[in-house]
Amino acid sequence: MSQEFSTGFPHVRQVQNLIRDKQSVEIKLLTGDLISGRILWQDPQCICLETDDQRKHQIWKQAIGFIKY
Amino acid sequence: MSQEFSTGFPHVRQVQNLIRDKQSVEIKLLTGDLISGRILWQDPQCICLETDDQRKHQIWKQAIGFIKY
Amino acid sequence: MSQEFSTGFPHVRQVQNLIRDKQSVEIKLLTGDLISGRILWQDPQCICLETDDQRKHQIWKQAIGFIKY
Amino acid sequence: MSQEFSTGFPHVRQVQNLIRDKQSVEIKLLTGDLISGRILWQDPQCICLETDDQRKHQIWKQAIGFIKY
Amino acid sequence: MSQEFSTGFPHVRQVQNLIRDKQSVEIKLLTGDLISGRILWQDPQCICLETDDQRKHQIWKQAIGFIKY
Amino acid sequence: MSQEFSTGFPHVRQVQNLIRDKQSVEIKLLTGDLISGRILWQDPQCICLETDDQRKHQIWKQAIGFIKY
Repeated sequence: MSQEFSTGFPHVRQVQNLIRDKQSVEIKLLTGDLISGRILWQDPQCICLETDDQRKHQIWKQAIGFIKY
Repeated sequence: MSQEFSTGFPHVRQVQNLIRDKQSVEIKLLTGDLISGRILWQDPQCICLETDDQRKHQIWKQAIGFIKY
Repeated sequence: MSQEFSTGFPHVRQVQNLIRDKQSVEIKLLTGDLISGRILWQDPQCICLETDDQRKHQIWKQAIGFIKY
Repeated sequence: MSQEFSTGFPHVRQVQNLIRDKQSVEIKLLTGDLISGRILWQDPQCICLETDDQRKHQIWKQAIGFIKY
Repeated sequence: MSQEFSTGFPHVRQVQNLIRDKQSVEIKLLTGDLISGRILWQDPQCICLETDDQRKHQIWKQAIGFIKY
Repeated sequence: MSQEFSTGFPHVRQVQNLIRDKQSVEIKLLTGDLISGRILWQDPQCICLETDDQRKHQIWKQAIGFIKY
């Protein structure tokens, strides 16, 4: 997976843009949860989302259905 | 997965055709969601779907059940 | 996965037979959907099923529970 | 996965024994289905189960919760 | 995955201890099933659990949520 | 996956911090379970969570939706 974690890929670059712009997003998970917040960081395995109550959700990418923005 | 992301494979080429033709599709996700729209781009991990309200859904391929067209 | 996509494996060969014989099958997905139709093509990632209304379902193999025939 | 598909592993050998002995088993899938029958063959990706009505279920291993015997 | 199946990893060693001690465990699966019993063996792909009625459940690790002990 | 299990990655380092600080966390699983407790250890495949009743949950990372902290 490391080889595919490069800003050369749109899916990585888009998330980097969302982090830079502190844009509000919704993330739908395979658990059925829909979580709203801002993305703080990403790495090859996880995305960290901070919700309005300032709790951090370290989300495994394997569990993501989609990010809506 | 990179090795398998080539237009030599029908599953990649078909999605490229759907992008080129701006064709309406439905995507059924493992979350149970059925989302309608047009595909903007794909890369080895994700497909980006724009819905009629011009919101973008960056969908992880791991979460796709099927694309109907 | 490429290495395992060869007609030397029964699971690939059986699907090739189903395509050749235009046999009706049912595919049960992890989404809970049960879809009936004929398989048009397969590649290492996907199987394309045409339903009676001539709509195509490009199904990701990762989402398949079973094919019944 | 090929490297791990060898009769040196108990999980492969046990399924080979079930095939040889034509033993009745129950397979629970991530779809929630519980299917009863006899295993006809296995390969690195799939297990084929024949139910009492002589229909074949080509089950993807990724979708198996457990085999009960 | 083979490279990660070594008693140098806590997750493998703990299961080996549970086998050696014939300890009762509960395994929660992605199917929603919660199965109680004793672990007979593990290999890189599966864990075999014997329930009180002496039925064996060959569980695929991919389907395990957690083991409780 | 081994290559990606290094404290150079935020997702690994954050969990190491949670272990060191004995911080209470909630883990949401793909089974739908939400489990609260403290993380005792992690390795490339699993995270071990101790709940208040001192039961250990050896959680497979594949089954994690998110860790909330």
